Amino acid sequence: MKQDATEDEIQAVVERVEGAGARTHRINGDELTVLGVLGDREHVMRLELEGAPGVDKLVPILKPYKLASAQIRHGEPSVFEIGGRKVGGTHFALIAGPCTVESREQTLGTAHTVAAAGATLFRGGAYKPRTSPYAFHGLGQEGLRLLAEAKAETGMPIVTELMDARDLDAVLEVADVIQIGARNMQNYTLLTELGRAGRPVLLKRGLSATLEELLNASEYILKEGNEQVLLCERGIRTFETAYRFTLDLTAVPVLKQLTHLPVIVDPSHAAGRRDLVQPLSLAAAAVGADGIIVEVHPNPDEAICDGPQQLVADEFAAYAEKVAQAAAVAGKTISTPAAEPAATAAA
Amino acid sequence: MKQDATEDEIQAVVERVEGAGARTHRINGDELTVLGVLGDREHVMRLELEGAPGVDKLVPILKPYKLASAQIRHGEPSVFEIGGRKVGGTHFALIAGPCTVESREQTLGTAHTVAAAGATLFRGGAYKPRTSPYAFHGLGQEGLRLLAEAKAETGMPIVTELMDARDLDAVLEVADVIQIGARNMQNYTLLTELGRAGRPVLLKRGLSATLEELLNASEYILKEGNEQVLLCERGIRTFETAYRFTLDLTAVPVLKQLTHLPVIVDPSHAAGRRDLVQPLSLAAAAVGADGIIVEVHPNPDEAICDGPQQLVADEFAAYAEKVAQAAAVAGKTISTPAAEPAATAAA
Amino acid sequence: MKQDATEDEIQAVVERVEGAGARTHRINGDELTVLGVLGDREHVMRLELEGAPGVDKLVPILKPYKLASAQIRHGEPSVFEIGGRKVGGTHFALIAGPCTVESREQTLGTAHTVAAAGATLFRGGAYKPRTSPYAFHGLGQEGLRLLAEAKAETGMPIVTELMDARDLDAVLEVADVIQIGARNMQNYTLLTELGRAGRPVLLKRGLSATLEELLNASEYILKEGNEQVLLCERGIRTFETAYRFTLDLTAVPVLKQLTHLPVIVDPSHAAGRRDLVQPLSLAAAAVGADGIIVEVHPNPDEAICDGPQQLVADEFAAYAEKVAQAAAVAGKTISTPAAEPAATAAA
Amino acid sequence: MKQDATEDEIQAVVERVEGAGARTHRINGDELTVLGVLGDREHVMRLELEGAPGVDKLVPILKPYKLASAQIRHGEPSVFEIGGRKVGGTHFALIAGPCTVESREQTLGTAHTVAAAGATLFRGGAYKPRTSPYAFHGLGQEGLRLLAEAKAETGMPIVTELMDARDLDAVLEVADVIQIGARNMQNYTLLTELGRAGRPVLLKRGLSATLEELLNASEYILKEGNEQVLLCERGIRTFETAYRFTLDLTAVPVLKQLTHLPVIVDPSHAAGRRDLVQPLSLAAAAVGADGIIVEVHPNPDEAICDGPQQLVADEFAAYAEKVAQAAAVAGKTISTPAAEPAATAAA
Repeated sequence: MKQDATEDEIQAVVERVEGAGARTHRINGDELTVLGVLGDREHVMRLELEGAPGVDKLVPILKPYKLASAQIRHGEPSVFEIGGRKVGGTHFALIAGPCTVESREQTLGTAHTVAAAGATLFRGGAYKPRTSPYAFHGLGQEGLRLLAEAKAETGMPIVTELMDARDLDAVLEVADVIQIGARNMQNYTLLTELGRAGRPVLLKRGLSATLEELLNASEYILKEGNEQVLLCERGIRTFETAYRFTLDLTAVPVLKQLTHLPVIVDPSHAAGRRDLVQPLSLAAAAVGADGIIVEVHPNPDEAICDGPQQLVADEFAAYAEKVAQAAAVAGKTISTPAAEPAATAAA
Repeated sequence: MKQDATEDEIQAVVERVEGAGARTHRINGDELTVLGVLGDREHVMRLELEGAPGVDKLVPILKPYKLASAQIRHGEPSVFEIGGRKVGGTHFALIAGPCTVESREQTLGTAHTVAAAGATLFRGGAYKPRTSPYAFHGLGQEGLRLLAEAKAETGMPIVTELMDARDLDAVLEVADVIQIGARNMQNYTLLTELGRAGRPVLLKRGLSATLEELLNASEYILKEGNEQVLLCERGIRTFETAYRFTLDLTAVPVLKQLTHLPVIVDPSHAAGRRDLVQPLSLAAAAVGADGIIVEVHPNPDEAICDGPQQLVADEFAAYAEKVAQAAAVAGKTISTPAAEPAATAAA
Repeated sequence: MKQDATEDEIQAVVERVEGAGARTHRINGDELTVLGVLGDREHVMRLELEGAPGVDKLVPILKPYKLASAQIRHGEPSVFEIGGRKVGGTHFALIAGPCTVESREQTLGTAHTVAAAGATLFRGGAYKPRTSPYAFHGLGQEGLRLLAEAKAETGMPIVTELMDARDLDAVLEVADVIQIGARNMQNYTLLTELGRAGRPVLLKRGLSATLEELLNASEYILKEGNEQVLLCERGIRTFETAYRFTLDLTAVPVLKQLTHLPVIVDPSHAAGRRDLVQPLSLAAAAVGADGIIVEVHPNPDEAICDGPQQLVADEFAAYAEKVAQAAAVAGKTISTPAAEPAATAAA
Repeated sequence: MKQDATEDEIQAVVERVEGAGARTHRINGDELTVLGVLGDREHVMRLELEGAPGVDKLVPILKPYKLASAQIRHGEPSVFEIGGRKVGGTHFALIAGPCTVESREQTLGTAHTVAAAGATLFRGGAYKPRTSPYAFHGLGQEGLRLLAEAKAETGMPIVTELMDARDLDAVLEVADVIQIGARNMQNYTLLTELGRAGRPVLLKRGLSATLEELLNASEYILKEGNEQVLLCERGIRTFETAYRFTLDLTAVPVLKQLTHLPVIVDPSHAAGRRDLVQPLSLAAAAVGADGIIVEVHPNPDEAICDGPQQLVADEFAAYAEKVAQAAAVAGKTISTPAAEPAATAAA
C-alpha cells in the first residue's frame, strides 16, 4: 500500500481480494502497510489492483507459467527423442543447414556435409519471414520437397519454419521439428495450432521478449498437450550498432533454472557475420546450452539470403570439432543417432 | 572497403555489383577505398556484400519502403475519411473506448459518454492478445455484436483488433478501422490479408521495432492496394522498471518526416497507469500526433482487463477539453463529423 | 523463499534478519513461504540475502532515497529562487543559450536575444565533455569570463557545466546553477563536492540511468546540505537509430510523483536535430515539466559544436511564444523576474 | 544529400567541405546525390554538416580512435607484462579476489587461496562506488594497506579501483593495475590523469556504452602516452529483469577485431548471482576473452558488499580448473609468473 493509504483503502483492498476467493495477510510496518495475498495468481491478477486507491504496487511471487516451470518436473530436465536423436540433459544438439533452401544441389550437398560432420538435425527454410515485402520469401512447397529428399538421403531429422497456419499440413509432412521465428513468438493463434499438432517445436525468443514472456509463449503450446518445446535464444535488440543483435547468453543458465525445457542458441542470426559464429558457438556450448542452430552454405557468397552469416560447408567439420570440445567443458556430448550406430557413417 | 582490402577484392565486389545490373563509383581515399553503388536497393541488398572479402560495411542510402515514404506524396500528408470523420493533416483523431468489451451496459454507456465529449472514433476489444494462455481473451463474436450496437446507437465508427485471419470476415462486418497489435506488427501473413481487405488499418509499432521496421510492415499492407494505414506509437521496451513501457514521442515528428501516413499515439498501453494518461496525451497532442487512442471505462476498478490504465468515463469530457487545447498548440483540431454538424449532438 | 526452501533455511534467514535489528513476518502459502521484513532498508540490504540458501528474491518496498522523496515534503513541490527567478511549482524555466561559448559576439548576441524573448536563465558551456579526446573541449576560463559579461549585460542568471572538481572555484564565481552532465551523473566525488558548494545544481540523467539511480545521485548532493537540485531528462539510449537519443517524457510525470525536486527537459541533446527541438519542447511543456533547456546560436551552421541541434536565434522569440502556450496547457507560466518587473529591461 | 536537395545546397556543402581542407567526390544517382568526403575526420565532423540545408545524413567511414585501433599494430594483439605475468595474445588472465577489502583475515586468506589455484592477478576494492550515498564505501587507505600486505605475502600483482583523482598517489603505491569502474568510463578528467600516471589501467565499459565509446575512452588514456589499457566487458543494461545486467559476449570477438588491446570479462558484476558466475566464466573464456575478473570470498554470506555474487573461496580451485579448460578451447592458457619458467610448463 502507499505510505498515505487510509484504513478504508486498505480494507477495500482486503475485501476485493477475499471476495475473489483469496486470503490476505497484513503486515503493519512503521512507514507503510504490506498486504500478502494468497490464492490463484490469475484470479488475483484479474482484480488489477495496481490502480486501486491506496495501492502502491503489486509484486507477483508465483510464476505465471506452470507446465514450463522447472518445478513441475522437480528440477529434472526434459530429454526429447527426435528422429532417433536425444536432445536435452547431456545430449547436445548440433543443428545445421542452409538459411534458405535454394536448390537441390545446395540442399543435398549441405545435408551430406553436415551429416558427415556429425550434426544432430538438419535445418533449412522453405518459408522465410522478411522485413521488406519486396525481399525473397522462400521456395515454399518446393523447398519442403527438397528437405524431404535431404532427409531421405541422409536420415537426418528436419527443422523448418512455419509462418502461416494454412501451411501447417504441408510442413507436418516433412518437419521433425517446427520452428517458430522470433517475430511470431507471440502469434498466439499459431502457437495454439502447434500445441494441437503434436510435433516438437523450436520456439525462438522475440527480439525484446523477456524470459517470462518466452516461457508464457511456450505455455500456449504445452497447454494444448504438446510437451516437446525447445526454447531458442537468438539475440536481443540493444543500443549497440556494431553488430546486428546482442546474443544473451546469460539467458541460458537462467532458463535452465526456470524451466525443464531444453535451451538452444542461434549464433548465426544473432551476429549476422560469419566471423563471429564460431566464437559465439563455443561460448554457447560452454555456458551450458542444450544445442546450437547454425547456418551453413556450400558457397555463402552466392546465397540468396543471409550469406554473410552462413558458415562455409567445407569448414564445418573443423567447426563441429571445436563445438564438441566446448560442449564437453559443460559436460555435454553432441547427440547422434545412438540406436543406429551405422547410420551416421552411411550418411 | 576495409583498410587492408586488396585490389583484387575491390575488383571482385565491382564485378558482383555490376553483374547485378547496378553501377559502381569508386572513391580512393588516403586510408581506404569507398565504393558508391547506384541501382535497385533490393537487388544490391540481395548480393549481401557485407560478408564479402575486403568489405567493411554497407550503408544503404535509399529507404527500403516506397509506398509509405513521404516522397511518394511529395511531402503532402495523407488525410483519410473514416465513417465521415477526417483523420490526418490538421484533423486530430480522438479515439476512445473500453480496453475490452465486457457487457452491453459498459459498452453502450462508454460509447455515449465519449461521443458526447466529441471523440472521433470508438474503440473496443473483442479479441484480446494476452501474454498468459490462462488470461481472459475477450468476448469474441459477442463482443463484435455489442460494438455494432454501439455504432448503431451513436453513429461512431468502430476501431477493433484482429488477431487471427480466420476472424477477418466477422470483424469486417463491424470495424471501420482494424487494429493490429504490437505483437503482430511483423505477422506478415496477417498484414497481407489486411492489405487485400481494403479497410483502414491501425498498425501498432512492435515493442522494440525500429521506425524503419514499422514502415516496412505498413508497406506489406500498402503493397496489396490498401492505402489507408494509420501508424501507432504505443511505447517501447527499455531498461526502466518504474513504468510499463517508455512512450517514444520523438518517433512522432520523425515519422511525420519519413511518411505521409497519419501517426496516432496510445498513452494508455504505454503507461499502464491512469494517472500518467492525461500528461502523456497532452504531450502526444503537443508533439504533433494526428490522434490518440485511449481507454475509458465507467468503473475501471471493476474492469476485467487493464483497469488500472483506463480513464474514468465521468472524467472524460474534462480530459478531452485539455487534449483539444494541446492539439491546438500543434495546429490541430479534434475531428468530428463535419458534414453532419448535428450528428454529434444527436449521438 | 524458493518453493523448495527447507524449514532450516527459512529459520536461518529469520535469524539473520532479526540479528540485524529488523523484524520478520511470515506468510505460509500453499506453494511457498514469504517473509516480510520490517526495518531499516540499508541494514537489511547489507545482509545481501539474495544469495542465501532457500531465498528466491528480495523485493524492496521502501525507496532508498529520502531527502529527494516526495514524502519528505508531503507531496508539496519545491520552488527555488535563482537570481530572482522562481523555478518549480507553476513557474516554468525557459533556459536557453549556446551549446558552447565560442566568442564574445556569439555569447552576448545570443544572451540579448533570449533575454528579450523572456528566457528565464542563460546557458552556455565553457567546459565541454566530448566522446573523442581529439574534439574541441571548450574555452575554459575564457568562456567563464564571457558568461560573466553576458550576465552583467542582461541580468540573466547563468547555467554552466562543471566536469572537474578542480574547476569548482572558477565556476562558482560565475554560475548561478552548476550543470552536471549525463556522463558524470554517477561521479560521486563530484556530486559530493557540489553538495558542499551550496549552489543550485542541474543534474542530468545518465544515458541509461533509471529514475531511482537519478534520485540516488541527487541524494548525494542533498545529503551534504544543498537542497537545490534540478533534475534533467535528456534522452535515453535505445535501439532506435533514426535519432540520437529517445526523449523519455514518461519520466516527467513519474518523477513529479516520486520527488519534490523540479524536473527540466533537454530536447536539444536528446534529438540532436534542430527540426525536432520545437515539437519535443512543446511536448515537454505539455507533459508537465518544470522547464526546458535549449541550445540557441546566431548562426548554427558555423557553430563549433552541436550546430545541427541549436535553434536559430532569430527564430527564438516565436519558439518561446509556442512553448508558453504549451506550458499554459499544463498550468504553468514561463518564469521571469516577477518581483522586479522593470528588471529585465534594466538588466 | 536529401532527395530534394537543390544544386545550390549541394554546392554549398562542397564549398564548406573544401574550405575545411578536405576533398569531395560527387556521385549522381537517379534518385539522389551522394558526396564522398576525403580528409581528416575531426575537421570534417566539426563542420557538423548534418543540419545543413539539403543534407540527409553523414556516414563516417573512418573510426574516431587511432591509438586503440587494430590497424595501428597491423592486427597484432598487444601483450602486456604486469608484475611478471603476461596478459594478452595466448596469455589468459585469471583475476580474482574479494569485491571489497573487509579485514586482514578475509583479504590474506582469499589471496592465498586464489594464488594457490593459479590466479594471475589479485583484485580487491578499497574505494567502492555505490548507488546510494548511505551504503558502505570501502575501507579506503586501510584497504590499500591490506592489499599491499597480500601482495607482499603472495607475490600477486594487485588490481584495485580508483574513483577520485585525489587518491591517485595512494593507489599508485599499491596497484599494479588501476581499475576504472563502469560509471567513470567517461570521467574524462580521471582518464587523462591515468594516462599520465603510466600504470596499466583496467577500463570497464559503461552500462550502456557502445564499443566505439569504450574505445574512445581508452584513447583518452593512450593519448597521454600510457599504452597499457585492458578493456573490460561487465554487462550492459537491457529490458530483462531476471538478471542484473546482460553480459555482452558478442563484444569480445568484435573488440578483438577493432583493437589490439586485451579484453577482459567480469561475470560477477554482470550476473549479480553466484550460480551464474561459472557458466558465464566458461563462456567468456570460450568466446576468446583475454581474461576474466571474478569475486571470491571465504564466506560470501557474511560479505559486506555483493556477497551473493562472490564465489566461495573453497570452491575456487575447481572453478579455475574448468576455466582453464574453456580457455584451452579458444587456444589460451592461464597466465602465471614468467620469471619462473618451470611454473608455466608445470601448469
